[in-house]
Amino acid sequence: MIGEDDLIARHFAPIAGPGGLGLLDDAALLSPLPGHDLVITKDALVAGVHFFADDPPGAIARKALRVNLSDLAAKGAEPLGFLLGLGLPPGTDEAWIAAFAKGLGEDAKERACPLLGGDTVRSPGGLTLSITAIGTCEAGTMTRRGTGRAGHLLAVTGTIGDAALGLRLRLEPEAEWAKALSPKARAFLLDRYLLPRPRNALAASIHAHASAAMDVSDGLLGDAVKLAASARRGLAPRIALQGVPLSEAAREAVAIEPSLMRAALTGGDDYEILIAAEPGEVDALLAGCAASGCPAHVIGTLEESAAPEFIDADGKGVRFGALKFEHDWKS
Amino acid sequence: MIGEDDLIARHFAPIAGPGGLGLLDDAALLSPLPGHDLVITKDALVAGVHFFADDPPGAIARKALRVNLSDLAAKGAEPLGFLLGLGLPPGTDEAWIAAFAKGLGEDAKERACPLLGGDTVRSPGGLTLSITAIGTCEAGTMTRRGTGRAGHLLAVTGTIGDAALGLRLRLEPEAEWAKALSPKARAFLLDRYLLPRPRNALAASIHAHASAAMDVSDGLLGDAVKLAASARRGLAPRIALQGVPLSEAAREAVAIEPSLMRAALTGGDDYEILIAAEPGEVDALLAGCAASGCPAHVIGTLEESAAPEFIDADGKGVRFGALKFEHDWKS
Repeated sequence: MIGEDDLIARHFAPIAGPGGLGLLDDAALLSPLPGHDLVITKDALVAGVHFFADDPPGAIARKALRVNLSDLAAKGAEPLGFLLGLGLPPGTDEAWIAAFAKGLGEDAKERACPLLGGDTVRSPGGLTLSITAIGTCEAGTMTRRGTGRAGHLLAVTGTIGDAALGLRLRLEPEAEWAKALSPKARAFLLDRYLLPRPRNALAASIHAHASAAMDVSDGLLGDAVKLAASARRGLAPRIALQGVPLSEAAREAVAIEPSLMRAALTGGDDYEILIAAEPGEVDALLAGCAASGCPAHVIGTLEESAAPEFIDADGKGVRFGALKFEHDWKS
Repeated sequence: MIGEDDLIARHFAPIAGPGGLGLLDDAALLSPLPGHDLVITKDALVAGVHFFADDPPGAIARKALRVNLSDLAAKGAEPLGFLLGLGLPPGTDEAWIAAFAKGLGEDAKERACPLLGGDTVRSPGGLTLSITAIGTCEAGTMTRRGTGRAGHLLAVTGTIGDAALGLRLRLEPEAEWAKALSPKARAFLLDRYLLPRPRNALAASIHAHASAAMDVSDGLLGDAVKLAASARRGLAPRIALQGVPLSEAAREAVAIEPSLMRAALTGGDDYEILIAAEPGEVDALLAGCAASGCPAHVIGTLEESAAPEFIDADGKGVRFGALKFEHDWKS
């Protein structure tokens, strides 16, 4: 039986940064750069809601960190570090914790976002994680969500829908489309659900060229409506659906089962960045993203309009019942 | 049925500070004071482990915030704000959430520690909370845990053991001592378990006069050993047990059942501050604490010693089986 102090000393102190003070104090210590703001985000994940309890522990840890890093990327901020709240179910063995900490430490190192502190508690109801990530940007320059304007173009990084389709594969592995999918496409989609790819490499381009941005976590179409509405009422997105970037694997799935397009556009867990930009900034934005290893694609505009418009390949408007995925605690 | 966005807009946005950006963005924004460090702490609480699921929702919220504020107080830091990770069990009704947010908002206002952001998720396994609190102090001056030295005096704020005895009253209300206790003492102890009193009013005195400090959350005696050991091996506390400040209610309980003294000294949940101070600083420390409305009392010293010493009223050493309360996730 290992106590909390030993657990921290053995598995978490080795992945802590200097601000973590060896995880031996009541608090972490950060010395902000002069002239810089702090950008702080917190995402909680619960077994059975945000991941499967039997996912590999290292992948659970990476996902928890990465969904927070995605928020920092969307704000054009550079990561400084994170704190971890870890609720462990009774009977968690030390090998599980070691694997969890290993995955977490590798991601933290690779993304220059060290562990600064946290809390480990017993959680009889199942595994829960809560990460607070802290980033920084020059004072007054954080990329906001509600600063888009009519006429700005909308772009999105990477590809959309992969994680939502990966989740569908986990939930209904025996569906016809799932069985018809190539092994390569299946593996790609499953991996994208398990491990988001936060776009921190694009933070500088977003910071330099975006008029507004947010990370896409609850479904592209609903998040686009949210980005517009957070600027003001009467602003709405107009999106050409054929312009939404899909991976080869997602295209294969949609070709087998066209109704999956809806899941891809509204399903959530993308952890890509939705970016608004003035028309004169778009070329530089797209070039910056491509140069940083993750292309972005223009998918529409922000318009003076009471309602969003989603346009299909024939130029017709498409209606969606639910625009986004919302975790609801009553269900 | 209320969705996450509406819930945040109705109940949490009204208690957010300016840095929370209306809780409408991906992240919170903090502009640190020039020449100041940030002090960051995170404590998680789980229903059935750290509080009772049927505690009043406002009290659960206050406790979650207060245990974090206690860490900031121990570091001599002034609160700037906090983020809340809230895992709600299925079926949580809006009245519960409203009461939770009301208690949280009142505490946040009273203690000048506004809500900055967070995340609300569904938690099928029961209510979980994770708060990250952020404080500040002049650069390089955070009161550390591991900076006590041999010959420094140990003091503790407030009174010790009240919350531990309050928890015992919750767990064994029909015990002989519980039934013999006066209604006033019972109410006092129960309240101290339900609602910690973090000593943020003492932060300036601690900052000015302590050589080291930590908050007492896992039991006074074990935490004193921890404070000493975090400086280095071979440093240990020597504590005169009769000097440990007890409330009138705790003295009444111990008079009825002397064995409760052990629970008071090792039981945890005190959320008082254990302070080490150079002998020349002690008078000013005690005067500052008293002037700020919460007296501190000298209870011992830090000594060059391989083992702690706990001395009773007759000058004899007392041995304790377990020095502290540790939440263990294997039990």
